[in-house]
Amino acid sequence: MPQETQQTDFQLVRVKSTWCRIKKGEALSDCKDKITLSEAKIGECISKGGISWTIEAPIYFCYKVVETYNILDHSNTTLLWGHITDPQQLELATSGKRKLRRFIVIDEVVDKLYGSKVREYFEENNVQHKILALPTTEETKSMDLVLNILQEVQNFSIDRRTEPIIAIGGGVCLDIVGLAASLYRRRTPYIRVPTTLLSYVDASVGAKNGVNFLQCKNKLGGYTPPVASFLDRSFIQSIPRRHISNGLGEILKMALMKHKGLFDLLKSHGKYLLDTKFQSYSSSADHGDAALQTTRIAIETMLEELAPNLWEDDLDRLVDFGHLISPELEMRVLPSLMHGEAVNIDMAFMTYVAHVRGLITAEEKEQIIQCMRGLELPVWHSGCSWPLIKRALMERLKHSGGQPRMPLPTGLGVAEIFNDTSEETLERAYELWVRDCKTALEEEPAALSEL
Amino acid sequence: MPQETQQTDFQLVRVKSTWCRIKKGEALSDCKDKITLSEAKIGECISKGGISWTIEAPIYFCYKVVETYNILDHSNTTLLWGHITDPQQLELATSGKRKLRRFIVIDEVVDKLYGSKVREYFEENNVQHKILALPTTEETKSMDLVLNILQEVQNFSIDRRTEPIIAIGGGVCLDIVGLAASLYRRRTPYIRVPTTLLSYVDASVGAKNGVNFLQCKNKLGGYTPPVASFLDRSFIQSIPRRHISNGLGEILKMALMKHKGLFDLLKSHGKYLLDTKFQSYSSSADHGDAALQTTRIAIETMLEELAPNLWEDDLDRLVDFGHLISPELEMRVLPSLMHGEAVNIDMAFMTYVAHVRGLITAEEKEQIIQCMRGLELPVWHSGCSWPLIKRALMERLKHSGGQPRMPLPTGLGVAEIFNDTSEETLERAYELWVRDCKTALEEEPAALSEL
Ligand SMILES: NC(=O)c1ccc[n+]([C@@H]2O[C@H](COP(=O)([O-])OP(=O)(O)OC[C@H]3O[C@@H](n4cnc5c(N)ncnc54)[C@H](O)[C@@H]3O)[C@@H](O)[C@H]2O)c1
Ligand SMILES: NC(=O)c1ccc[n+]([C@@H]2O[C@H](COP(=O)([O-])OP(=O)(O)OC[C@H]3O[C@@H](n4cnc5c(N)ncnc54)[C@H](O)[C@@H]3O)[C@@H](O)[C@H]2O)c1
Ligand SMILES: [Zn+2]
Ligand SMILES: [Zn+2]
Repeated sequence: MPQETQQTDFQLVRVKSTWCRIKKGEALSDCKDKITLSEAKIGECISKGGISWTIEAPIYFCYKVVETYNILDHSNTTLLWGHITDPQQLELATSGKRKLRRFIVIDEVVDKLYGSKVREYFEENNVQHKILALPTTEETKSMDLVLNILQEVQNFSIDRRTEPIIAIGGGVCLDIVGLAASLYRRRTPYIRVPTTLLSYVDASVGAKNGVNFLQCKNKLGGYTPPVASFLDRSFIQSIPRRHISNGLGEILKMALMKHKGLFDLLKSHGKYLLDTKFQSYSSSADHGDAALQTTRIAIETMLEELAPNLWEDDLDRLVDFGHLISPELEMRVLPSLMHGEAVNIDMAFMTYVAHVRGLITAEEKEQIIQCMRGLELPVWHSGCSWPLIKRALMERLKHSGGQPRMPLPTGLGVAEIFNDTSEETLERAYELWVRDCKTALEEEPAALSEL
Repeated sequence: MPQETQQTDFQLVRVKSTWCRIKKGEALSDCKDKITLSEAKIGECISKGGISWTIEAPIYFCYKVVETYNILDHSNTTLLWGHITDPQQLELATSGKRKLRRFIVIDEVVDKLYGSKVREYFEENNVQHKILALPTTEETKSMDLVLNILQEVQNFSIDRRTEPIIAIGGGVCLDIVGLAASLYRRRTPYIRVPTTLLSYVDASVGAKNGVNFLQCKNKLGGYTPPVASFLDRSFIQSIPRRHISNGLGEILKMALMKHKGLFDLLKSHGKYLLDTKFQSYSSSADHGDAALQTTRIAIETMLEELAPNLWEDDLDRLVDFGHLISPELEMRVLPSLMHGEAVNIDMAFMTYVAHVRGLITAEEKEQIIQCMRGLELPVWHSGCSWPLIKRALMERLKHSGGQPRMPLPTGLGVAEIFNDTSEETLERAYELWVRDCKTALEEEPAALSEL
């Protein structure tokens, strides 16, 4: 529709209390007042049909991810004001002039294990508090629970500027509370304290939150990051061994996509990490600082991929590795597979795809599969049939702008995203994968029970 | 806590598919691949206590506000693809290769008046559509209704990338649908079509959405802007005269805060705008293009103030004028006052405050009050007692970081934000205000019914 149109681009400057438009490039007239220039822009297009304005405005999200030890030790003040960066605010907060108040949501199981320490912590620090213990599971991960929390928050009457809501629990708890906080008064700060390995290395690092809706996982949610995530590995000591493997699945994902050193750590110390549940706190001759190194690198690599793409506008995402087929598989076999397990099965298949495409050698493929087994993760599942894989990849296309955007390893700890994997390649990879896994099963029938 | 710490700031660059940290200022090593630099930053602080990462990442929000005429004329394609900016996407959308599908939520009253035209529009444009007519009122403005909408959206199965949800109605409808869309799959594009004057100049211009919760107005919500707002003044023809005044209240706010020309338009053409309900579409000798000019300036000034502060991080906001005392007043006298009316009463009082502070002359104050009367807006209310004002200003402090941040006119169409209005000034202004209004009442008892 070619029309006579007139386009003008404006910047915005504030003089005293008032924002004004100025044409881009236009010099500011002499002015004695302090002038602020905004990064927001307004484009104005005048045509016969009327005016059309285009507004472009950046919002800066800022949050912290903080390692800490003994977070519930009453002399550790991280949980109280570790989220504050501004020195002036910190001084005000710690001055004792203001009565401290905190609203805490804690997973019911975690409450049983650590609740008394949590209560002590706030009591000893003289914080007026409300602790809400909730059953936060996939089944209760719903808007209902979000609204329950919000009702209690409203009763407690928090100050939105100075009293962040604290979530202590696994990924489900952190996701629910994150959504509740981001809805309350259009954004209330919140703090994440992960208590499972998966939430330590994954849910605590990014901005996402969400709940399930109509049987669909994380169908409702948002991208408002917490003010801070506080990471204390000691919670992990009480989670079952299988849950450690589950978290290791997402760590392995980062290793395969972008960090050979992390892969080597997992290969060499996988069993040790499982046995010690990440509870070694000093360097040993055999294992160095494996737990510390592994979690740190996992978080750093995750941050590298998430920070430039906080709202997931870019669909080309290495962190989607293991997440192309696993959603369909999880849905199909629930609850027999945990998330990290389904992810691992997906990654195992994709490793074969990479090999068949000639991206990695047979030896590299073998190393990867062996590492997975060492982490006690399933590398195959009978529910992962060829039709399921095809269906899952069709579904993927819908959510990724019509392209598969398939991350594949191109070596150990390096990867790229591909859009040109042929159906023949996939089918050939599937056959090889099934054949190898079946052989392995026959060779060591004990492995069967793991699947 | 002084400690030995080591701080490093990283930028993020993408080489092929992988994001990597590089130290700020560090030169990129020779590299044949295309390199992308992100605006996100990661700060790393290593201390004895562990590592603390600080993530800072901007998200660019972009949306359009578009004037259009005859939006429901089937040859006007604004509603179908007026939101698309990218030429490639536009070509794909208009190519006819893809079946068009749209999900529309419409206010029940608007549906009765315009529903058949809406249906015709989508039918004649061969769009597969679902129209959901809902009673969108302050009473139903709740998370329940949001979830109802989302259930229908899920049944209709929209494509989140190419099928924006369309909302047609007043501010309540736009706010509910905005929240629903921003929750669905963590962000689904939506379009606003305002049908009241208030929503035309206010709710359609910014990013806010929300619902009421536990008797509190807009307690839950967010700041995700629509992809586009399409403005067609013709809907306004069917709203009652009092609702026009209601919308004029928010327009007058912008005039008083920052646009003398807009104030003059309202002063000279207020009655005309009320009589014609903004339905004049050509320039007349007496009134020029008053309806067009008024709405345009209202929107432009509003955009100037909202765009640099889309998420309301800055608490110094001229657009808060009229919104310091009115929340308390609205709550107190509901439903006898409409929002714009309560805002106007607040603005009338504040005009007296500005006068008593010596910011505006008696004559200017009189002009403002006269203009308000001309717009058939109440300038006083018996419920607006001195204790209520004090309570409201106390409440304000809580939500504005401990400072009143009181916008006050400093002339006609200019204003500033003040933090130093004394209680004596406020009380003196209150007395003058009440005295003048009572006198006015005695002089023209007809005015009584307006209050
Ligand atoms: N927001 C994100 O970026 C993100 C990332 C990954 C996963 N997730 C979400 O996280 C969820 C999975 O998280 P999860 O694996 O932590 O599951 P979970 O929160 O369901 O926790 C698993 C189980 O462990 C228990 N538990 C938690 N901490 C414990 C402890 N210290 N000791 C003993 N038991 C403990 C819980 O009660 C629960 O029964 C999923 O809903 C997923 O969608 C979110
Ligand atoms: N998001 C924002 O930035 C923003 C800004 C201002 C106001 N709001 C919200 O907007 C709401 C007020 O908006 P409103 O004044 O449009 O109220 P509304 O949506 O309740 O509409 C008022 C009434 O007019 C009817 N109506 C709507 N269009 C009509 C038409 N063309 N002809 C005849 N009747 C029509 C509606 O059915 C309703 O009964 C409040 O809830 C407020 O919180 C939001
Ligand atoms: Zn995952
Ligand atoms: Zn208002």
